[in-house]
Amino acid sequence: MLEAIDLINNHNSSPLYIRICDYIKRDIENGILHKGTKLPSYRKLAEHLGVSRNTIEQAYQQLLSEGYVESKPKSGIYVSDISTGIFLSKNVSISDVISFKSHSEKNTHNFIDFSVSGIDTSIFPISVWKKLTNDTINNFTECLNTAGDSQGEPGLRNQISRYLYESRGVKCSSEQIVIGASTQYLLYLLYILIDFQDYAVENPGYDRVARILQDLSANVVGIDVDNKGMNVEALAKTQAKVAYITPAHQFPLGYVMPVSRRVEILEWALNNESYVIEDDYDSEYRFVGKPIPSLHSLDKSDRVIYFGTFTKSLLPSIRLSYMVLPEKLLQVYRDKAEIYSQTVSNIHQKTVELFMEKGHWNRHLNKMRTLYKKKHDLILTELSSKFGNSINILDAKSGHHVVIEIDGDEEELVALARGVDVIVYPVYQYYFDGRRSEHAQILLGFGSLSFDEIQTGISKLAKVWMK
Amino acid sequence: MLEAIDLINNHNSSPLYIRICDYIKRDIENGILHKGTKLPSYRKLAEHLGVSRNTIEQAYQQLLSEGYVESKPKSGIYVSDISTGIFLSKNVSISDVISFKSHSEKNTHNFIDFSVSGIDTSIFPISVWKKLTNDTINNFTECLNTAGDSQGEPGLRNQISRYLYESRGVKCSSEQIVIGASTQYLLYLLYILIDFQDYAVENPGYDRVARILQDLSANVVGIDVDNKGMNVEALAKTQAKVAYITPAHQFPLGYVMPVSRRVEILEWALNNESYVIEDDYDSEYRFVGKPIPSLHSLDKSDRVIYFGTFTKSLLPSIRLSYMVLPEKLLQVYRDKAEIYSQTVSNIHQKTVELFMEKGHWNRHLNKMRTLYKKKHDLILTELSSKFGNSINILDAKSGHHVVIEIDGDEEELVALARGVDVIVYPVYQYYFDGRRSEHAQILLGFGSLSFDEIQTGISKLAKVWMK
Repeated sequence: MLEAIDLINNHNSSPLYIRICDYIKRDIENGILHKGTKLPSYRKLAEHLGVSRNTIEQAYQQLLSEGYVESKPKSGIYVSDISTGIFLSKNVSISDVISFKSHSEKNTHNFIDFSVSGIDTSIFPISVWKKLTNDTINNFTECLNTAGDSQGEPGLRNQISRYLYESRGVKCSSEQIVIGASTQYLLYLLYILIDFQDYAVENPGYDRVARILQDLSANVVGIDVDNKGMNVEALAKTQAKVAYITPAHQFPLGYVMPVSRRVEILEWALNNESYVIEDDYDSEYRFVGKPIPSLHSLDKSDRVIYFGTFTKSLLPSIRLSYMVLPEKLLQVYRDKAEIYSQTVSNIHQKTVELFMEKGHWNRHLNKMRTLYKKKHDLILTELSSKFGNSINILDAKSGHHVVIEIDGDEEELVALARGVDVIVYPVYQYYFDGRRSEHAQILLGFGSLSFDEIQTGISKLAKVWMK
Repeated sequence: MLEAIDLINNHNSSPLYIRICDYIKRDIENGILHKGTKLPSYRKLAEHLGVSRNTIEQAYQQLLSEGYVESKPKSGIYVSDISTGIFLSKNVSISDVISFKSHSEKNTHNFIDFSVSGIDTSIFPISVWKKLTNDTINNFTECLNTAGDSQGEPGLRNQISRYLYESRGVKCSSEQIVIGASTQYLLYLLYILIDFQDYAVENPGYDRVARILQDLSANVVGIDVDNKGMNVEALAKTQAKVAYITPAHQFPLGYVMPVSRRVEILEWALNNESYVIEDDYDSEYRFVGKPIPSLHSLDKSDRVIYFGTFTKSLLPSIRLSYMVLPEKLLQVYRDKAEIYSQTVSNIHQKTVELFMEKGHWNRHLNKMRTLYKKKHDLILTELSSKFGNSINILDAKSGHHVVIEIDGDEEELVALARGVDVIVYPVYQYYFDGRRSEHAQILLGFGSLSFDEIQTGISKLAKVWMK
């Protein structure tokens, strides 16, 4: 059994009784102390180790509460029956614990990255945000202390419903709005709430949506997209009960769904008792005329589920997205969803509410729109001046990215660009069926690039792509 | 067709060209302007309305981009072919949009609520939190502008791995830690990542876990809990590949799983190539001896998935939970999960990292532990002084709640309590199979209650329960 010397040599900083307890545990785990062995009395062990009786009492107390030993009334304390096989295998060392390298570290140093997800944050009113965050913490302390309404904070939902009505023609009550951390989370909620198994997605389209639904083991079919959006005739031939589309700015191709096609898909939903998910991901940024009204604004039969997000227009970091549920789905939602607690920070929800209420949101959107329009116009000018007729720029009147068609192989073009430190994105990865379009199609996101980077980037591309 | 008078009377504040455009759209939607109708020339309509030619050009441009009209080269602009049936049904009025009432508003005014989820926030170092939030916004602006690492920020994961090692004996690298908004979200990630269909949960147990897994259409069996925790013999008879347990403080009954049972369940996992989810939800609060080491710390065979959360110990509002994946699951995780973007605010992640790094976390935990111990001791004293032998208090050495056994019917007892404005929670709702225990079992959470409220609450209960 353990010796006083062990304790003196031990550099462990925990209290003495814990160190004694740990020694005894180790001896039990290693089978040195067998089942049924009687532990020495408090007094004996105290004398043996030259520590106080009380210390030993504490140590035994801890062993009892962890179940290493059992107390038999009027008899003493005995080692419990524990099979010790599992204790004889490998152990992780402290160095494993401290050492760290992120698998997801990227080195984008020096690259010009035409990423579609990047946004320009240079004009974000950071001091306003800081002030409103402090106001929230100071004046709305209750926000800090609760996860809040599982559907999202009423005040914020109220602001969103007003905004949606004024800027997107979406007529809904705050009751229909569900707030969640990322579009992906909302898709998951939707999947487990409305019991639909069959989904249709755009082909090409936002690949994550299809994969998330497939991970949930839903049936997903890809429906071809033409320059008006999803082909409704093809859709009508499927089992799909829910169609996921991006009518304001088809992702990735960028087409706007004209009203004729919008009406067709609404009629499909009505006649099939199906639903349309309208992902309005970047509709704030329409550069020609006013934003195209939402599909939701045309829907008189309560068949559109509207998805919106603050990720591309406010702050990516706060993970604030939302959906508008049709009235006929509200009850289903409430019956099931009340166990799903809110995933978005209550502090951020309140801060965004204040941000909208005080008019900062509209001001910010206008500034962003102007900024993106300049970048958008610049990239179009640069593209046509550098490439002329050797590329075709697909319908580009909004959003953070353009798609160009050019002769060649997409991987090759991407590799050539890489060779001059420019990152561009092939469209083929967004084809649900892995098909290729006849021309190479390349995505060029410009949201996060400076004017210089856009110019340099396009010239570099011209150099390696035009031979 | 529309008259100048309409425009003058129109209170709509949008630009003139938009108002003209909207009038024409309405006429098309109402079938007043039919398919193929040629629109008047810019000049004609401009003269007719007494507006500039340019305004009409803009209006037509908008109609074109929304697809209401089509332009035929060298001929003119014609109304497109749109079936207008759907436009003839009900409309939501602006009042619907503005009016709001939350379905989830609760009036807990005057009630003493022995809720298990409430926590004491009176001693939260709010000024420190505010300062660190500002530091984050000022000095780590990049945090604001990105959703961050999909697995969670490396710096925070590093802090968590150190904390887990020092306080819970969990030996893991930051690489194994996955951060997510709420335990529920992490369960969902886990479900879609490791392809297991059969789960075992504690009976009685944390009901949400079972329901979330069932919503994902997993097979869930409830395994009886005795005073040592989940019955492993019964578990071994099932198909279960994953067992969800709360060894440090069984929810709701509060038992601590002794090491003998811990070893049994680890052996089960090893022999069945199965996994154990250890939900360590409130282990920071052990009031007798030191916290019971985690099950994970005994696991030498990489079979334990450890769940932790900051919800009960720091701030409920920031929705910060995490799990520790076994090394053998890391690759599976990375292959699938990279499309699942992070759900927790990057700003909050950085702030918590600073909070831990600077030692505020440990200080706060110690304060909380002292505070909860006082409340815990108080409620035990009050219970035994007011109820004496007529109740049995189940093993209560940690956490935010105690369970008492008392004669009578749970609903009745709850109703009697309600009668004197005290809210208590019956245990029966946590029985997976709807069974009742022979004695009524009542949950008393004390986290958020003041000392006065605890005293008053228990006396009120004594008055109505002891007759």
